[in-house]
Amino acid sequence: MLFTDEQIQNKIDLKTKPIGALGQLESLAKQIALVQQTDKISINKASMLIFAGDHGIAKYGISIAPSEVTTQMVQNFLHGGAAINCLSRTLGWHLNIIDCGILTKLSHPDLINQRLGNCTHDISTSPAMTLEQVETGIKYSENLINKLHSDGCNTIGLGEMGIGNTSSAAAICAAILQKPASELVGTGTGINDKQLILKSNLIQKALDRINSQDVIEILQNLGGFEIVQLVGAILAAAKNKMLIVIDGFIVTSAALVALKINPNVKQFLVFAHCSQEQAHKKVLEYLNVTALLDLNLRLGEGSGAALALPLLQSSVSFYNDMASLSDLGIEI
Amino acid sequence: MLFTDEQIQNKIDLKTKPIGALGQLESLAKQIALVQQTDKISINKASMLIFAGDHGIAKYGISIAPSEVTTQMVQNFLHGGAAINCLSRTLGWHLNIIDCGILTKLSHPDLINQRLGNCTHDISTSPAMTLEQVETGIKYSENLINKLHSDGCNTIGLGEMGIGNTSSAAAICAAILQKPASELVGTGTGINDKQLILKSNLIQKALDRINSQDVIEILQNLGGFEIVQLVGAILAAAKNKMLIVIDGFIVTSAALVALKINPNVKQFLVFAHCSQEQAHKKVLEYLNVTALLDLNLRLGEGSGAALALPLLQSSVSFYNDMASLSDLGIEI
Repeated sequence: MLFTDEQIQNKIDLKTKPIGALGQLESLAKQIALVQQTDKISINKASMLIFAGDHGIAKYGISIAPSEVTTQMVQNFLHGGAAINCLSRTLGWHLNIIDCGILTKLSHPDLINQRLGNCTHDISTSPAMTLEQVETGIKYSENLINKLHSDGCNTIGLGEMGIGNTSSAAAICAAILQKPASELVGTGTGINDKQLILKSNLIQKALDRINSQDVIEILQNLGGFEIVQLVGAILAAAKNKMLIVIDGFIVTSAALVALKINPNVKQFLVFAHCSQEQAHKKVLEYLNVTALLDLNLRLGEGSGAALALPLLQSSVSFYNDMASLSDLGIEI
Repeated sequence: MLFTDEQIQNKIDLKTKPIGALGQLESLAKQIALVQQTDKISINKASMLIFAGDHGIAKYGISIAPSEVTTQMVQNFLHGGAAINCLSRTLGWHLNIIDCGILTKLSHPDLINQRLGNCTHDISTSPAMTLEQVETGIKYSENLINKLHSDGCNTIGLGEMGIGNTSSAAAICAAILQKPASELVGTGTGINDKQLILKSNLIQKALDRINSQDVIEILQNLGGFEIVQLVGAILAAAKNKMLIVIDGFIVTSAALVALKINPNVKQFLVFAHCSQEQAHKKVLEYLNVTALLDLNLRLGEGSGAALALPLLQSSVSFYNDMASLSDLGIEI
């Protein structure tokens, strides 16, 4: 290793500021410097990837909207009218929309086709998908990430869209954390109490079907097409030593799976925000990580990840360009 | 009023997202829209103002550095090497450095001279300054803000530099909140326990000298040259209907004073971050406001305020440009 933990910390501590005064920006700078192993760290061609997919379980009406809204929102992304479009334009992300398997196939030059089907199976009664679909999804993402990497991108943000996907994420997290559904289920974007109870019962049914700690099996049984591809993206980006900015609960569930497959992935992950979904905080605690932002977001679409980019850029900037105490002749 | 609270909320609620899903970005957009009263809100020529001043009380060694460091850090700002320079360049702030009264007068074309002296008096034994100095300081800031406003700036960020100024801020907040010094005193940028006890005792001595709820008298007795000018800047910016981004504990103490002078100022204030200084959280609670960021910062220099600019810009962007549900034919 060219730059050790100690050398990087020393460089940060000699900047013209009291030790530790830049708080989480300092830990972020250190993480980036450890990953990039260069004197001048950088964020290049930051690319936001929104993985979209539909979920069989949504047919029970356990979301605030029907599955058709996934397709409508993907169209919104493609037309530039969604929150993530506004945030990407404002903050400087290159936006990529990936169809991992939504109800209606759309034809648009900017839509990346990585479809694994139209919709997963209903996880409360059967496996979400086949093992082959899991493998294909992971391979799709690997190719996409490798292409971005070879184009000079060293930082990705991950987001998702999929009516019903907090159910899938809650099921995956419950299975891995070995907790009952009731502890990981939440109101998503805003369902009522009756819907919440139904959602919890359906997820528990899904959990009762399987009895395995094999994460690939968990993914195949409980995952979504977009969650599988998020896992693949995380694994591939880590292999390429890229920074990976994690959005809310659903992307965090994919990170949890990726970490079970390869714990070394952790050094590349930046947890952008803590969403209002109750389980998100629990999973972040389980992973022993602190999110950068807590702005009461519960939108998904990578919106929380998007907002973290200026914090990464600010960390890079102070690490590279701030004067050291010796430059000023200050001794603190 | 052209746009009412209800009209603005309605516009936000019709965006292509679940109600409230953008959390604090929504409240921020609403605040900006209420202040600006225009269909297309904006952040124009965002200007960061760093007010610097020295403090007589620093002679007791109750900071991690001596008063000379204020001048050295102002030189650092002027040479572009400090944290706030890096953050301003990265995030797009126009940076203004104001000498409100530091130990050594510097000559630099970019330094704004609003000196009220070399250093305040020791507040533990005598008033920090004369009433005339308070009035001059407020007038200086008014002129500066009016000039920025007439140049097209509609958003300011406020920061400060001054060895010893957490003592002055703690004294002001304790006097206004009518609490003992021990409840508002903190470790600043990192003093030890012995220094902390001395600091608390000195501030209590200062509080014991005065017995008044007249904030101008409090300011004259306990303030710093930079704090007085921060108060003036807040009052003048509010008069011009500008957005005012508040940094950490010291700037918040100035906001507290400004709010006591004119409670209408509140609508223009954006509290950027909650610093590690324990009293900051208490004063934010007293003011019944929520800060946007909590990144364990304790640097000052406007660093926390600087980091909030992308959040303001993101709020503006979604408010202006995000599609409405009816655009997509979605009914949620």
